Amino acid sequence: MAVLPEPVQNLILAFERLPGVGPKTASRLAFYLLRAPDEISLALSDALRDLKSATGLCQTCFNITRSGQELCEICANPDRDESQICVVEEPLDVLALERTGGYQGRYHVLHGVLSPIEGIGPEDIKIQPLVERVRQGKVREVIVATNPSMEGDATALYLGQQLQLPGVRITRLARGLPVGGDLEYADQNTLLRALAGRQELS
Amino acid sequence: MAVLPEPVQNLILAFERLPGVGPKTASRLAFYLLRAPDEISLALSDALRDLKSATGLCQTCFNITRSGQELCEICANPDRDESQICVVEEPLDVLALERTGGYQGRYHVLHGVLSPIEGIGPEDIKIQPLVERVRQGKVREVIVATNPSMEGDATALYLGQQLQLPGVRITRLARGLPVGGDLEYADQNTLLRALAGRQELS
Repeated sequence: MAVLPEPVQNLILAFERLPGVGPKTASRLAFYLLRAPDEISLALSDALRDLKSATGLCQTCFNITRSGQELCEICANPDRDESQICVVEEPLDVLALERTGGYQGRYHVLHGVLSPIEGIGPEDIKIQPLVERVRQGKVREVIVATNPSMEGDATALYLGQQLQLPGVRITRLARGLPVGGDLEYADQNTLLRALAGRQELS
Repeated sequence: MAVLPEPVQNLILAFERLPGVGPKTASRLAFYLLRAPDEISLALSDALRDLKSATGLCQTCFNITRSGQELCEICANPDRDESQICVVEEPLDVLALERTGGYQGRYHVLHGVLSPIEGIGPEDIKIQPLVERVRQGKVREVIVATNPSMEGDATALYLGQQLQLPGVRITRLARGLPVGGDLEYADQNTLLRALAGRQELS
């Protein structure tokens, strides 16, 4: 069916390759942009073109940074506590933790998790550089903040084994009921964890 | 908070300007593209850049077409019935009707609907060219397929007045229960219309 001119068709196909964007959303976006001011599609076009060429990875923590910069903003900041490293799966997790405003240490981005099913082993993610960072001796605590999933737990376990060094605490984020959540709707596992991790009312 | 490098921030902001894309979806898309092959973001970038420069409007029906082409594929197709014009609000509606495979006539895209509240009058949408098309004498039926909304109905009414010409039928798409819908969940207005438009079981 050649009802749509090629440029529109191309845009719809390109949108469809994004996660969570189906054919209907893709055409809606394309037709929105056809009506919208040129500037909106051009700004998005430019931002997409620059994305890869203008970004790189921090050489210490592997968070996203501007290309050409060896260290990310956090690693370059002398006010951030060098003795704590929070280990996360993806750069987006750094953002989530930073938004809390409750953490003043450094990060380490693994860029994935161990997953035997998908064939992802320790050498496929940034585990070795983390081990080296911790061995340098300044780190007192490694907070493993991988997702509370099977892969995240397996990765945490593996990291716990690799990072057994004198004077280094290895911790994992607490499990329990989410704030504002409803006990009635919590799943079994979450509830079991919340029970097991119960704390004294102080 | 300068946690995100500017190129990523720019992309997130550009995504957020799309309809239905909030801050969370925008960052999810940006971080997906950071991990995905370059080709995906570059293809989207190119498609966006070409969108406006490579498309134009058909000079007859105002559907989207390649720039430089005076007529769209449908208007240029001699097999499509010249005596029927289906009037729609947006180019996306043409696509929806074409997908049914049940219509062999031509189209006319208004690029909007009459809306006194938003200050959109007859001269702001492509009504005059439609009147001229119908006056040329080849058209036997105008199917008004504007949305079943207040504005769509008002536009249909106005078109009905403007297009009163001998030998020209003006019709409107049927209202009633959507196929696969559930009577129990149909709203009052739809049910009233379905009752009023009831047909003999043949």
